[in-house]
Amino acid sequence: MHWSRWGDPAEAGPLPENAFALVDAFIGTTDTPAVASAEVRLSEPLDADLVAELAALVGEDHVLTDHETRLHRTRGKSTPDLLRLRAGDGSDSPDAVVRPGSHEEVLAVIDWCVAKHVALVPFGGGTSVVGGLAAQRDGFAGVVSLDLIRFDQLLEVDRTSMTAVLEPGLRGPQAEALLAAEGLTLGHFPQSFEYASIGGFAVTRSSGQSSAGYGRFDSLVVGLKVATPQGTLELGSSPANAAGPDLRELVMGSEGTLGVVTAVRVRVRPVPEVKVYDAWRWASFADGATAMRTLAQAGMLPTVLRLSDENETAINLAKPSEVGGESAGGCLMITGYEGTPAAVEAKQAAVTKLLSDLGGTRTEGGEAWAQGRFHGPYLRDSLLDVGVLVETLETVTFWSNLDHVYSRVKEALVGALGEATLVLCHISHVYETGASLYFTVATKGSDDPLNQWLAAKAAASDAMVGNGASITHHHAVGRDHKPWLAQEIGPVGVEILRAVKEKMDPTGVLNPGVLIP
Amino acid sequence: MHWSRWGDPAEAGPLPENAFALVDAFIGTTDTPAVASAEVRLSEPLDADLVAELAALVGEDHVLTDHETRLHRTRGKSTPDLLRLRAGDGSDSPDAVVRPGSHEEVLAVIDWCVAKHVALVPFGGGTSVVGGLAAQRDGFAGVVSLDLIRFDQLLEVDRTSMTAVLEPGLRGPQAEALLAAEGLTLGHFPQSFEYASIGGFAVTRSSGQSSAGYGRFDSLVVGLKVATPQGTLELGSSPANAAGPDLRELVMGSEGTLGVVTAVRVRVRPVPEVKVYDAWRWASFADGATAMRTLAQAGMLPTVLRLSDENETAINLAKPSEVGGESAGGCLMITGYEGTPAAVEAKQAAVTKLLSDLGGTRTEGGEAWAQGRFHGPYLRDSLLDVGVLVETLETVTFWSNLDHVYSRVKEALVGALGEATLVLCHISHVYETGASLYFTVATKGSDDPLNQWLAAKAAASDAMVGNGASITHHHAVGRDHKPWLAQEIGPVGVEILRAVKEKMDPTGVLNPGVLIP
Repeated sequence: MHWSRWGDPAEAGPLPENAFALVDAFIGTTDTPAVASAEVRLSEPLDADLVAELAALVGEDHVLTDHETRLHRTRGKSTPDLLRLRAGDGSDSPDAVVRPGSHEEVLAVIDWCVAKHVALVPFGGGTSVVGGLAAQRDGFAGVVSLDLIRFDQLLEVDRTSMTAVLEPGLRGPQAEALLAAEGLTLGHFPQSFEYASIGGFAVTRSSGQSSAGYGRFDSLVVGLKVATPQGTLELGSSPANAAGPDLRELVMGSEGTLGVVTAVRVRVRPVPEVKVYDAWRWASFADGATAMRTLAQAGMLPTVLRLSDENETAINLAKPSEVGGESAGGCLMITGYEGTPAAVEAKQAAVTKLLSDLGGTRTEGGEAWAQGRFHGPYLRDSLLDVGVLVETLETVTFWSNLDHVYSRVKEALVGALGEATLVLCHISHVYETGASLYFTVATKGSDDPLNQWLAAKAAASDAMVGNGASITHHHAVGRDHKPWLAQEIGPVGVEILRAVKEKMDPTGVLNPGVLIP
Repeated sequence: MHWSRWGDPAEAGPLPENAFALVDAFIGTTDTPAVASAEVRLSEPLDADLVAELAALVGEDHVLTDHETRLHRTRGKSTPDLLRLRAGDGSDSPDAVVRPGSHEEVLAVIDWCVAKHVALVPFGGGTSVVGGLAAQRDGFAGVVSLDLIRFDQLLEVDRTSMTAVLEPGLRGPQAEALLAAEGLTLGHFPQSFEYASIGGFAVTRSSGQSSAGYGRFDSLVVGLKVATPQGTLELGSSPANAAGPDLRELVMGSEGTLGVVTAVRVRVRPVPEVKVYDAWRWASFADGATAMRTLAQAGMLPTVLRLSDENETAINLAKPSEVGGESAGGCLMITGYEGTPAAVEAKQAAVTKLLSDLGGTRTEGGEAWAQGRFHGPYLRDSLLDVGVLVETLETVTFWSNLDHVYSRVKEALVGALGEATLVLCHISHVYETGASLYFTVATKGSDDPLNQWLAAKAAASDAMVGNGASITHHHAVGRDHKPWLAQEIGPVGVEILRAVKEKMDPTGVLNPGVLIP
């Protein structure tokens, strides 16, 4: 992953001509290059004495303090993160990167961090967009990034139970390749899939583009092994039970603040024999949303189900290579079906009938969406290069509140950023009782784009939580969403999180400043 | 509910003739009557001064100390509970029963219990079979039962989101009647349905006979309002989100130890237009279980799916009125389908084809099961009357471990109780990755049936947890399962539960002795 951009530079490229023209006309562009990587100012590397102590725990090849290694583990991939790095601010860098090779080594590194009062930031794919990797430095003797890259094995496959045990450092494609060799799939494909890790998916409650068919990541997890300052926590005796509170649901969403996940037992499914993606056009966002709700409440969800609003449809965001090109109007919906030929045929037929009955019309573009599905984030870098501020944010609420929250968040963003702001939205995760809203925002960057965005983000977050929606559907909390998490769960909820944190990590070295209000 | 028996005496009756003959021949019978209710020795009623203080909070009509009222809220409905009561031991009785009428009154009663160091036992339907109502008396100034009977309203229906807010004191049939008037159903039908309450379902992670179609109760809950010593906790901004640990999953399963649930927002579905129950016969329990697993992993679950083992099939336990009658052998499976005519027809056809392909044969008995589905518990009382010790216990594990756990638990029970012990089993809750095992045990009661059972229960529990299964699929923890919960979640898991308890209820007045190891 590039240090200040998304993904693989070979996959990136300049903004497509149509997109550039659109943005230039509507927003305006200014060449805004990033500094060179060597110019980014990082923290001082960890003292040699402390490096030697860590090296004694994990081996000297696995404690790194060079500029490039630390730079690549500095913050995540939110627009504020990128703006800071592009401007040369690497102040949240780790002082060292340590790469333990076993659960026992993770325990040892944690114990060392406790003893030395060094902050420890678990690092998986580095794709956080909520400040989940920007630990608090104040009050600590240093900050160490615990890179899980050596946890890259498929440890066990149970074909009868259809479960597999995956190590947390596996990136999405690595995990899928190991499972595919067994004829299996996890079915978890968030937009960050190519870089994000199994451990990260678990501790952030990730949700992927195929969540309608395979489920959210937290619903795929049946067991967890966690290294904590108190020792090892192993959970998951069964698919579900009545043995008290479900502590798996405390570890999931804990974002490295309670311990380091070292193994994840997940549900797996057979590799689908067939994958088909259809596109539909709806007269309005409301019509399309009603159709999605009808499918969800009828228990007829396809594997992929997403709906772009009028703005997102108009600029073809569903097909990154064609952004700004001609659009037929209305609202684009993608329906994807994966499984055996018979199951796909039956589900596609049933969904097609229902959507047709509800007024949807079939159009082209399903396969194009599938091909470009992981390419969206590259566009942001191209826009930042020309001085356009662009970011995404998301929420989830009950169906009866969806349209209200959609309107309020759009108003908040335009109110904060001005009329020359593009706000695009899609629904990409649906439940019987509600759905997510995923916004993409683009506007002309000011002289201080960081604070320009933070003000808009705060206004949008107030609109979400103030109107009864959640501060996040699948991006998690990190540092950026903490104030709104506190509002969402209330003072008693905050006290519970603090109590668990205090018990598990009494000296507070695990990802300090993240999650816990 | 009868004070020492299940349910409504008008629904009960002597053991059917065939059943009596079977039990008499295999186990032997001895007339073993219970004491009269007036002879049960209860605790001393709460002091008049304290009663007056409580009356000031909730009104004097709602603080009761008479023998009958307290007797009816003494313990739950496990066999040990019944054996103690039948022998006249009411030592776990509450000293008073208090019936608050609002969330604010619950908060006030909690605050009063904290101030006076009086133990508080939330009471819903009184159907616990794990000692969930037998709070610790030692160290407290008294024990008060907080009866939620006045929390009996359907507070809100959201037809768009298909959610409803139910009060916790609603019994199963009351809740279903209120929802049915709106054309809706919860679809939660545990065997305790006729007496158990919405609040109890939530805090014990109940699972019902239609769980394959409607889901476990914890999967139906989207929001909770809880009165705690720290104030009010309100959870449930959305169907699902990534806003940190899911604290709903801490309240569910908390069994009254962290607070008192005063409102529950649940998913609801349309009242099914059609209900069809089929019966199937399998050559063996293993064959039937494989068929269930195939259905679950193919995403083709009917609404009801259960399978009796050879022993349970042989004595017709699936049809309480015919226990001991003639049986055709093999293993009986029930498949139930509920929904629209079209959905039922399609699902029934698909399941029928798959089960036929796997070697199942259709037989009669599906509708008979549905008619007798809530009648099983009455049999136990009839057996206790003739000196036969009978009890149920349950577990859940992954499919690959299911047969192993089944054998080990049966061995443990026969090892503890002797060869002249009937052990019956069914699978009634299935998941993609595993399933529950529900055992019914009958043996000749000894001179000390209570300790006879406790020893057998301990052996069976060791066999469950020692072989990697959970101590409970849906009966919950209470006092009876505590030692095994501690093994199942390990010392770090126990510390987490204790930390949350200490924060929420620092003086420990909420259901002391229950759940928290």
